[in-house]
Amino acid sequence: MSILDGVQVASAGVELFASELESQEAAVTRVDWRPPAPGSESCLARLAVAGTAAANDRAVARMQEAHPRLTGIGVAGDLIADLEPGTFLHAGPPIEWSDMAGPLRGAIIGAALLENLATDPDDATKKAAAGAFHFVPCHERGTVGPMAGVVSPSMPVWIVDNEPGGNRALCTLNEGLGKVLRYGAYDSEVIDRLRWMSAVLAPVLTSALQLLDAPLDLRAMIAHSLQMGDELHNRNRAATSLLLRTLMPALLTIDHPRSDVVDAVEFISSNDHFFLNPGMASAKATADAAAGVEGSSVVVCMARNGTDFGVRLSGTGDRWFTGPAGIVDGLYLPGFGPEDANPDIGDSTITETCGLGGMAMAAAPAIVRFVGGTPSDALATTDRMYEITWAESDHYQVPALDFRGTPLGIDCREVVHTGILPAVNTGIAHKDPGIGQVGAGLVEPPMEAFTEALDALADSSTQTP
Amino acid sequence: MSILDGVQVASAGVELFASELESQEAAVTRVDWRPPAPGSESCLARLAVAGTAAANDRAVARMQEAHPRLTGIGVAGDLIADLEPGTFLHAGPPIEWSDMAGPLRGAIIGAALLENLATDPDDATKKAAAGAFHFVPCHERGTVGPMAGVVSPSMPVWIVDNEPGGNRALCTLNEGLGKVLRYGAYDSEVIDRLRWMSAVLAPVLTSALQLLDAPLDLRAMIAHSLQMGDELHNRNRAATSLLLRTLMPALLTIDHPRSDVVDAVEFISSNDHFFLNPGMASAKATADAAAGVEGSSVVVCMARNGTDFGVRLSGTGDRWFTGPAGIVDGLYLPGFGPEDANPDIGDSTITETCGLGGMAMAAAPAIVRFVGGTPSDALATTDRMYEITWAESDHYQVPALDFRGTPLGIDCREVVHTGILPAVNTGIAHKDPGIGQVGAGLVEPPMEAFTEALDALADSSTQTP
Repeated sequence: MSILDGVQVASAGVELFASELESQEAAVTRVDWRPPAPGSESCLARLAVAGTAAANDRAVARMQEAHPRLTGIGVAGDLIADLEPGTFLHAGPPIEWSDMAGPLRGAIIGAALLENLATDPDDATKKAAAGAFHFVPCHERGTVGPMAGVVSPSMPVWIVDNEPGGNRALCTLNEGLGKVLRYGAYDSEVIDRLRWMSAVLAPVLTSALQLLDAPLDLRAMIAHSLQMGDELHNRNRAATSLLLRTLMPALLTIDHPRSDVVDAVEFISSNDHFFLNPGMASAKATADAAAGVEGSSVVVCMARNGTDFGVRLSGTGDRWFTGPAGIVDGLYLPGFGPEDANPDIGDSTITETCGLGGMAMAAAPAIVRFVGGTPSDALATTDRMYEITWAESDHYQVPALDFRGTPLGIDCREVVHTGILPAVNTGIAHKDPGIGQVGAGLVEPPMEAFTEALDALADSSTQTP
Repeated sequence: MSILDGVQVASAGVELFASELESQEAAVTRVDWRPPAPGSESCLARLAVAGTAAANDRAVARMQEAHPRLTGIGVAGDLIADLEPGTFLHAGPPIEWSDMAGPLRGAIIGAALLENLATDPDDATKKAAAGAFHFVPCHERGTVGPMAGVVSPSMPVWIVDNEPGGNRALCTLNEGLGKVLRYGAYDSEVIDRLRWMSAVLAPVLTSALQLLDAPLDLRAMIAHSLQMGDELHNRNRAATSLLLRTLMPALLTIDHPRSDVVDAVEFISSNDHFFLNPGMASAKATADAAAGVEGSSVVVCMARNGTDFGVRLSGTGDRWFTGPAGIVDGLYLPGFGPEDANPDIGDSTITETCGLGGMAMAAAPAIVRFVGGTPSDALATTDRMYEITWAESDHYQVPALDFRGTPLGIDCREVVHTGILPAVNTGIAHKDPGIGQVGAGLVEPPMEAFTEALDALADSSTQTP
């Protein structure tokens, strides 16, 4: 019998302390608490008196009011300002060729071949290295793209309009699984598929969307999908099924060659991630609506380019705050392991920015089959996210949490204050160009991006104590 | 401070005892236990030594091996022995006109009009009362039907084959919501819809099914749907979506008037319960495979005709054991209340017989929006069902229970022994013919049906102590 027998301890923070007590037979309850990030005390204190709460209310109200609808499909070069041949949008914060990771380079090479700007991969690489191409983050053009997120002028894009906010967001069409551009693959199979998507898939979907009585209500479709086991980042099986179901009468009616329509439907139906892209555009339209509220510490963008992870806050305008992209902890496809993994990449964290994806994992217990963990981990993950969010969604609910609204509006102050980082689940790209997906899992964003963002917000605040 | 302070009590059974102790500050843990049903001790003792365990292993193994596939659609009169004009199949155990409840009478009237056996509802009623019609339970003809479950010769039926068991099951096509025959409505809107289903819907689906590479794998589709928030009795949104998604390329290809195909797709898509019927046929094919194992106490049929609830066991052959159909405790549509409700009706409890529906509510937390209760009730319901089942499904899993197999093979001995009745969720029909659905909820089957079945099994057992 120990001298501590019968003693009850609440342990916050240092695990060593808790386990030592336990070894002496004390009853220890661990409290999830970490000290504020080093150096953040001053800005947290300043923001506590700077009207941030009212600003966050305004920003999150715009997210709640957002009503993203799928208006149609267009061509990137027609819709995106300054997207000339030779300019490529990419995922995440700004980056130049010399710093790009393998999958992003691979996707640029593929897009250069698609646009007939290079004769072969070597030629594309040389031109890129010589400064012949121009690189711009998708997020700076109202656009998002999964994984490498490369957008070139000829690519078709989903058009999502948020009427209450008067804003629009775009996203490419999902290429399916296996060797695909977004994972950095660029062989002829990849390029041929992209050309078919421009020539057949996009026109078929465009015609079908035009036959709908009203633009397709993505907010409603996402709300339904959350009640059907999707979290809308790495699990989109329900949403993809509902999208097809909704378009089906129109697809039966449109005046396209029947074989083209069948090919399009089989392409969509073979890929449970097909809805990811319109879902991302929906989230982008929602997050953008909340941007630009002076003094707000609400996160309106989280995105990775395979090298850096970047954050933007509502109250800090167009500035990016970055830290190194994390290594994903997850499940690997046969023949691959952690040594093959590229660091975290893609704009798909726009889903988490709006309370979906990793933030809503409790709605999708089966996601753990894809990203690892157990269903109770998924519940605990979402539960923890309420610690760092400003509100709960009025539209998106988690049945398993008694229909509680999803955690909405990540408050950068709370991230820094609690040490709890937004939960992100994601695919894992091979680190070398041309290979593709090697797994999926969970990843933590770098805290330094959030502390820097908070510093900047505090600096920009007119009121200081 | 009470004399009982610090005392810990496990209380089984009588609630009065537990609450009295609690009022005296004793710590009470309630154990879910009820005494065996009166009179059951002798047969429980006899069955404990009668090889029932080995028999149940065999019966449940046949359920596990069952692999129901959708082979096609046929016409009831062509496929069902002795289904001549004037004969009507109905849900539940045998019943004559004089004992039929309103919704079943209404459906018989409607089917008589459909088959041109009566000039109007009065004429149909008179003929039925005069003994001009012949009534047979669906279950006695390898068939199931939701709610009233009336099947007449001209109706199209799903054909589901279980190759491992060499058996086949049939079920009508779902008519949608609102005024429908299965809830006892029979006006011209109902009859016209049934004629359209024969003339258009069934041929369209038949052609589409013929274009599939292989018969549609219902077991796989149900397994996916359980991971998408369905429990396959009162929630079939995912399954209906997956069915449409699977048939879509074929529906685009078949040589039918385009407007017929569009009408068929819109009809299916507007009704999230459309999959209920092939799902019921799948469950019937699974349960029938387990029937006829001498000595087995596994339940292979639970069904209600609106007056009586009937049970059949694997080891008691074709005999029905009945008790009064229960009153459903649930949510009502606006304008209706418990005083409007007919007692429990329908063969749809075939889903519960195979571990779906109420037994699998933990897979479908959102079902509580339809039948009442909370998501934690749904979890607790499935959890409790493992107390009365012989096995867990190898194919159907509940993500929220850490992918535990659904509770499979209701053991009549355990029902009687524990006092825990199978959990059933169901639609509520108006008690008068011609009105339709008024709500949905949960219902308890009558214990006496299970005790009688167990008595009969014990009597038929050759070994007695």
